[in-house]
Amino acid sequence: MPTPQLGVCYYPEHWPETLWAEDARRMREAGLSLVRIGEFAWSRLEPTPGDLRFGWLDRAIETLAEAGLGIVLGTPTATPPRWMLARHPDMLAVDAQGRTRKFGSRRHYCFAHEGYRAEAVRIAGLLGERYGRDPRVVAWQIDNEYGCHDTVESYSPAAAAGFRRWLATRYGTIAALNDAWGNVFWSMDYASFDEIDPPNLTVTEASPSHRLDYRRFLSDEVVAFNRAQAEALRAHTDAPLIHNYMGRIVSFDHFAVGHDLEIASWDSYPLGFLEDRVDTHEERRRRFARQGDPDFQAFHHDLYRAVGRGRWWVMEQQPGPVNWAPHNPAPLPGMVRLWTWEAIAHGAEAVCYFRWRQAPFAQEQMHAGLLRPDSAPAPGLAEAAEVAAELGDLPETGVSPVGLVFDYAAAFAWEIERQGTECDYFRLVMDVYRTLRRAGLSVDIVPPDTADLSPWRMVLAPGLVTWPAALRDALAAYDGAALIGPRTGAKTRDFRIPDALPPEVPGLDLRVARVETLRADCPVPLADGGAFRFWREYVEGDAPVLERCADGAPALVGSQKRAYLAGWPDDAALDRIVRRFAQAAGIETLSLPDGLRVRDRGGMRIVTNYAGEPMALDGIVPGFTGTLPPAGVAWGTRVG
Amino acid sequence: MPTPQLGVCYYPEHWPETLWAEDARRMREAGLSLVRIGEFAWSRLEPTPGDLRFGWLDRAIETLAEAGLGIVLGTPTATPPRWMLARHPDMLAVDAQGRTRKFGSRRHYCFAHEGYRAEAVRIAGLLGERYGRDPRVVAWQIDNEYGCHDTVESYSPAAAAGFRRWLATRYGTIAALNDAWGNVFWSMDYASFDEIDPPNLTVTEASPSHRLDYRRFLSDEVVAFNRAQAEALRAHTDAPLIHNYMGRIVSFDHFAVGHDLEIASWDSYPLGFLEDRVDTHEERRRRFARQGDPDFQAFHHDLYRAVGRGRWWVMEQQPGPVNWAPHNPAPLPGMVRLWTWEAIAHGAEAVCYFRWRQAPFAQEQMHAGLLRPDSAPAPGLAEAAEVAAELGDLPETGVSPVGLVFDYAAAFAWEIERQGTECDYFRLVMDVYRTLRRAGLSVDIVPPDTADLSPWRMVLAPGLVTWPAALRDALAAYDGAALIGPRTGAKTRDFRIPDALPPEVPGLDLRVARVETLRADCPVPLADGGAFRFWREYVEGDAPVLERCADGAPALVGSQKRAYLAGWPDDAALDRIVRRFAQAAGIETLSLPDGLRVRDRGGMRIVTNYAGEPMALDGIVPGFTGTLPPAGVAWGTRVG
Amino acid sequence: MPTPQLGVCYYPEHWPETLWAEDARRMREAGLSLVRIGEFAWSRLEPTPGDLRFGWLDRAIETLAEAGLGIVLGTPTATPPRWMLARHPDMLAVDAQGRTRKFGSRRHYCFAHEGYRAEAVRIAGLLGERYGRDPRVVAWQIDNEYGCHDTVESYSPAAAAGFRRWLATRYGTIAALNDAWGNVFWSMDYASFDEIDPPNLTVTEASPSHRLDYRRFLSDEVVAFNRAQAEALRAHTDAPLIHNYMGRIVSFDHFAVGHDLEIASWDSYPLGFLEDRVDTHEERRRRFARQGDPDFQAFHHDLYRAVGRGRWWVMEQQPGPVNWAPHNPAPLPGMVRLWTWEAIAHGAEAVCYFRWRQAPFAQEQMHAGLLRPDSAPAPGLAEAAEVAAELGDLPETGVSPVGLVFDYAAAFAWEIERQGTECDYFRLVMDVYRTLRRAGLSVDIVPPDTADLSPWRMVLAPGLVTWPAALRDALAAYDGAALIGPRTGAKTRDFRIPDALPPEVPGLDLRVARVETLRADCPVPLADGGAFRFWREYVEGDAPVLERCADGAPALVGSQKRAYLAGWPDDAALDRIVRRFAQAAGIETLSLPDGLRVRDRGGMRIVTNYAGEPMALDGIVPGFTGTLPPAGVAWGTRVG
Repeated sequence: MPTPQLGVCYYPEHWPETLWAEDARRMREAGLSLVRIGEFAWSRLEPTPGDLRFGWLDRAIETLAEAGLGIVLGTPTATPPRWMLARHPDMLAVDAQGRTRKFGSRRHYCFAHEGYRAEAVRIAGLLGERYGRDPRVVAWQIDNEYGCHDTVESYSPAAAAGFRRWLATRYGTIAALNDAWGNVFWSMDYASFDEIDPPNLTVTEASPSHRLDYRRFLSDEVVAFNRAQAEALRAHTDAPLIHNYMGRIVSFDHFAVGHDLEIASWDSYPLGFLEDRVDTHEERRRRFARQGDPDFQAFHHDLYRAVGRGRWWVMEQQPGPVNWAPHNPAPLPGMVRLWTWEAIAHGAEAVCYFRWRQAPFAQEQMHAGLLRPDSAPAPGLAEAAEVAAELGDLPETGVSPVGLVFDYAAAFAWEIERQGTECDYFRLVMDVYRTLRRAGLSVDIVPPDTADLSPWRMVLAPGLVTWPAALRDALAAYDGAALIGPRTGAKTRDFRIPDALPPEVPGLDLRVARVETLRADCPVPLADGGAFRFWREYVEGDAPVLERCADGAPALVGSQKRAYLAGWPDDAALDRIVRRFAQAAGIETLSLPDGLRVRDRGGMRIVTNYAGEPMALDGIVPGFTGTLPPAGVAWGTRVG
Repeated sequence: MPTPQLGVCYYPEHWPETLWAEDARRMREAGLSLVRIGEFAWSRLEPTPGDLRFGWLDRAIETLAEAGLGIVLGTPTATPPRWMLARHPDMLAVDAQGRTRKFGSRRHYCFAHEGYRAEAVRIAGLLGERYGRDPRVVAWQIDNEYGCHDTVESYSPAAAAGFRRWLATRYGTIAALNDAWGNVFWSMDYASFDEIDPPNLTVTEASPSHRLDYRRFLSDEVVAFNRAQAEALRAHTDAPLIHNYMGRIVSFDHFAVGHDLEIASWDSYPLGFLEDRVDTHEERRRRFARQGDPDFQAFHHDLYRAVGRGRWWVMEQQPGPVNWAPHNPAPLPGMVRLWTWEAIAHGAEAVCYFRWRQAPFAQEQMHAGLLRPDSAPAPGLAEAAEVAAELGDLPETGVSPVGLVFDYAAAFAWEIERQGTECDYFRLVMDVYRTLRRAGLSVDIVPPDTADLSPWRMVLAPGLVTWPAALRDALAAYDGAALIGPRTGAKTRDFRIPDALPPEVPGLDLRVARVETLRADCPVPLADGGAFRFWREYVEGDAPVLERCADGAPALVGSQKRAYLAGWPDDAALDRIVRRFAQAAGIETLSLPDGLRVRDRGGMRIVTNYAGEPMALDGIVPGFTGTLPPAGVAWGTRVG
Repeated sequence: MPTPQLGVCYYPEHWPETLWAEDARRMREAGLSLVRIGEFAWSRLEPTPGDLRFGWLDRAIETLAEAGLGIVLGTPTATPPRWMLARHPDMLAVDAQGRTRKFGSRRHYCFAHEGYRAEAVRIAGLLGERYGRDPRVVAWQIDNEYGCHDTVESYSPAAAAGFRRWLATRYGTIAALNDAWGNVFWSMDYASFDEIDPPNLTVTEASPSHRLDYRRFLSDEVVAFNRAQAEALRAHTDAPLIHNYMGRIVSFDHFAVGHDLEIASWDSYPLGFLEDRVDTHEERRRRFARQGDPDFQAFHHDLYRAVGRGRWWVMEQQPGPVNWAPHNPAPLPGMVRLWTWEAIAHGAEAVCYFRWRQAPFAQEQMHAGLLRPDSAPAPGLAEAAEVAAELGDLPETGVSPVGLVFDYAAAFAWEIERQGTECDYFRLVMDVYRTLRRAGLSVDIVPPDTADLSPWRMVLAPGLVTWPAALRDALAAYDGAALIGPRTGAKTRDFRIPDALPPEVPGLDLRVARVETLRADCPVPLADGGAFRFWREYVEGDAPVLERCADGAPALVGSQKRAYLAGWPDDAALDRIVRRFAQAAGIETLSLPDGLRVRDRGGMRIVTNYAGEPMALDGIVPGFTGTLPPAGVAWGTRVG
């Protein structure tokens, strides 16, 4: 496998042309070999409709490439110019409260608007035509951060019309829809598809089937929007197409988008995310304020490796304080290096820092770059250069011993039918993922359409509310250790409780008779320690009981090869259960303290210390000795 | 008095017709004798305008009645079908933020819309015509849960127009309105009724008189809507008319609606209510998470007994977890029985469980029934059957020793002029009610238009901001112990401070010179223990002082026969004051620990244990011995 | 200097004419000599358009003046009558969510609406014509509490149109605007001014330059609205023009409004403000619940003395509980006197109580007056009379030893780019102001356009994000002790980071290389004790280091004559730093416990006790002995 590359996001249109060459030289000097450009530059590429100005971009590519940088060129469709509004006055999204989301920042378009989609295809095609065969352009980025700022959700007239068409296609007849949605329930029957609105602003909640279909429709529109651009580019280029996803966005099916692209990437902002996207308590947020959550990035690295079918990048890596979180501290010295190594440990082909030079103007002027606004080096630059110097050929990433299923359809379902305040699919999956990390295990994220689970010795699939058909078949044929539940198969594809009751696990005589949700201060203790929290199921059937609640009810049923978890275990319970299964599956586990983390890349083991204090390695990570300083990274051959 | 009946809510339109007979048989087998049907079925009764389909309903009634069940038939006006919108596009309510509340769930109508009201009368009349003289239909339910989902409040054009008419009727001339509202205050004078809008979206708060009149108008529209249907039915039937109210809804005058109906009923969801409608602290919410608040249901039982002028039901009784609260745990085993007994102890003629079989589709599929979706018995079924077996002839409910006045007008007033964050009328009344329950006292709720208080040995009337004229006269003639205040008579009917200052209590020389509200951490200690919290008044006059604040100011003035409370006492102070008055009135009190409760029905005493642990009865409840297990119910003859 | 005057706000239109003379007599009897009237009376002065009714006002002035009261006459433009809406249907403000703010309370106009502005000028001119030369009218109040209820902010069509004109004037060409705002950033370039909207409802935040210009525009509209009325009055009168500002409103530049008026005044509600406008913790809020914050009023007294260029009043002084805060307790006995003395200590020419008699109707009927609604004296009356009896000729206020710069432009900047939840300009300035009060120092607020700082021995200028040009020059020439930072000069006037990096302090070789914001639980300790909280800067340059962070980074750099603070110090750090600088500047400091405060007026020292317990003065305040009771005030000659 080739050495991972480092790169940087650059905005030639923000700077005098006279600066470009020197910037390029300094990028190379720091060991960077990639530069992403162009993704917000539409108003400079086409200042008025049809007036195309590629000259500056030609010169920027020329200058950057000449210095030895590979160009990643973005389509600028996340930032339609102001004149676009005159051509498509109804292209703006409408929020759930019915307010039109106006021009003046970015992502101001509704994915379902066909006129705007055509414009996006047009500009992508023009860029493809001009640069698609240019060898200096080594990859393409389509649009930017789908879903950021809640932009998948839209209740615009365009979305309403699209939804009606989508429903007509899906159901054929209105009677089929009425039946599927259970519209008899509150006399909600429709006489025609034209009568159906998006499910917002109803008096109390709309039917969950209605809401689920709306989410699916919105997700499909993202896929279609992306695919349209991908096809426009593909006509002109063989370079890989990429999108840069975000952290903890579950408003569309990233796997489906990913199918139309060669590489997945994401934008990794550990400190910003810790403040507003990580489920944890305040004391832990304080503890990792300058390091970020030790598992949140790792999870997304694994997720996007799956979305990219093995090929993935970090397209934007936080290099210093950001500007958009409730608080924006500076990283602990060394963390930029650590974050980069964490990505590489997970198999990133490239890590690009965002951004080269801090902008002294507009919305993100408080967002650090590798350079300060006065072009002096910011602290991140030296750390990037340090990583660049450390990198060499690395082993192939390979397959991890553990597979963890992640399914956007499940996220939709949990959000639509939360049933308990804390009940969130992402949170549940992260609880399991953290447990695996505490155990020192490397993990692959498994898409729900996976037909063959044999690569993994152990597979976990928590919270799959709707059974992915392929996965259920794969599980039936699977010989490894499979741990599923809670809530598996709780709903049919139409969001109904299955006639025979869930979970309908192949080979397990088991029914979830009823469920309850729990206040955070009302956990249900388990007989072997720990407890269920938030979510609990009462199961029946002949499947053997592996663990019980303290009140005697089954908590874990089945076998070490195929077990169902009848609740949401707390950390103590998860640690025990996961270790037991891993042991039975022949997977060795560690007991890592909070902050110390391990990731294997082939036979190489990378150890990272997210803690603010040194961490002893002896007896903790086999084959490693001494202590790792705060923000320290160590690597060596995997032992054991 | 006949034995109370048990029943269940059933939706024949949700199930294959082939299931009906077996369902009916099982209902009877469980000891149920009532079945409520039809209240959400409009789209199946009239799929398109004028196309009436009574056939299935005929057959459902036939099947259910044949099994021995009495039918309670609902008018389906809480769920107008989608085609209604085409006929009356402006029938939807508009929320305080100006957003139209759309179709897609239920209760999507504005009470003030005359076109929709006519439709409601039409369908009620059609149902009355067909089933009004049918002896199998033993009672009628009109609409469903007025006010649920904040649906009394509407700022629609229909409401605005209705409000103007209402004002013109009330005031006659605009000058009278300007004077009554004090519009001179901020140059808010109107030249005609047409200029007046609902009081939403004003820059700062609108005049309290304006807001109070709007609340009265909205309440009157509920009354008128209900009355119109009642009249349409009454033309065809002699069966009792019922509405099923909700818990802690004070947006309309339930007594006024109740005057047009024979029986009051309410929908009792103890666990859901504990999470989102009970004022208590988190530790207590945890303690009773599986039992519900020990006093909240009891209060509503007493309230609706008053609304029904003695005749009342629980129309929907929670039988297991619900789906709509922040957390939805399962009840402690035995609680379904206990809740049913609590209702019966308070004189319920019938208790119907909601619902028969858990629906596997639509909005409430996570709401338990007596059956699971797969038709197996859910835990509630056995408990219902247990109560059915226990029931026999019971004594008449009779009059309680204590009367507690509850007045929706007071609730309007406190909400409009809160003055302190915690100052809420319902909360104040519940504080008093809980005190009475801790003292083991059975309570009657006294409507504000009560002209004769002599049935009760003690009457409490906290927080009556506007003096109900009849009650003031009744109090003047009352010979029992009357405890009133705080805030009594603080406003005239036009929401002005009376010229002579409140409270204008007959026979008490007393004036509230001024008031203040208190932070929760700034209580005002009383000399005899406990404190005033939230609300405090400074009074003057020659009335004797019974208790003083620690700072010497009068806290309780008057006599043991007629006293005024110049503040909001905390629990310790309430316990002492209520006991003193009860003692003086010759009423024996108990000292019940939290969770243990007593209710008398004639000479019968029912004891319930809401606690999660056993409760000793010896020395606590005279005549009862031993311990009562968690969720336990005991009954016997009242002693002492 | 003449003896300060006491006065009261009175609404003759609220009361029968027969009461006026007796009211006037009692005002005089209490020692009051001023009466403010008329500011909400438009609907009674002009019930229908053009139908002017000055008769009652003539008689009110006659009656009040005859009793010996000077009249302060208000223009009634804060309360346009209902008919105004018919003439100018689009005059209403629109909030940030796009909702029109309706008629029914007060301040229901958009400052940018030209039609309404003309009406305001018309009524002001008519009043001026009639009463401008009347010697009984001793002063004029224009409008009432600009900005109260968030009324500066408006996104109405009138505001949008005005904003476009304002931008065109400011930038000349759209290219200049695009460049200044950095619109290249996200392709936000405009082709014409007509394309620009107010910066609300954008998908994510609009450009800070866009937002800053909108704030400036809105502020300018307030200035223009006020100036138009001032000019209309000035044509007819030589009496001083006044506006009554509010507490902690930073939505417009009060200094700019003040330039068009002779006297500044403000409305001082210490208990209401403590509950909802003071940054402090709950325990302190409890401690001062009946006294108000010991420093909040003092700060505004100093601020408005600056806004009035030395001449200022309290136009409305809280006399008892108010009606609008989350809780509304009564003041501790003596506090009305103390508050009045605090104002006089700061040089108030007049203190008027709001209001004479508590209104028994409309929105503020729970707001205390000097009289109760039944005309009996409320507690405040005696305290007002006590102050009146105590007052005599007092020394000139004079210049304070310390100047503290306050700049509304800085408040705009911090709000637009908060970067950390707690980062608020007003809060930072108050932290510094409190420190000065704890040190017993009297303070002058220094406007940002001050060209000469020599009157003060020490000047502090925290948080001046944009350098006021005059002040920077003044500082360059200043010989006293100047303490600036953090965030000084962080932005250019166009809201960009300056090329050379901030702070560009004359004579200090210093650059802020980068900044970070801190969680409240992540302070950065300083080597000498205390810590930076919320905001921290990393500085570089050759300026000497006076203090360091515990991690060695410079915290305070420069000299005792000119120093820059590289963070937001906590109280402990502020106490030390301010004392060091004061000492170096030859200013003696005290160490006052929380609650005890000192203010000098010329050679006179006024000591106040805000605490709920007595405070010893010996050894605490030189020259004062014994103890001061709660709410006590003492005065004497300043010693030391």
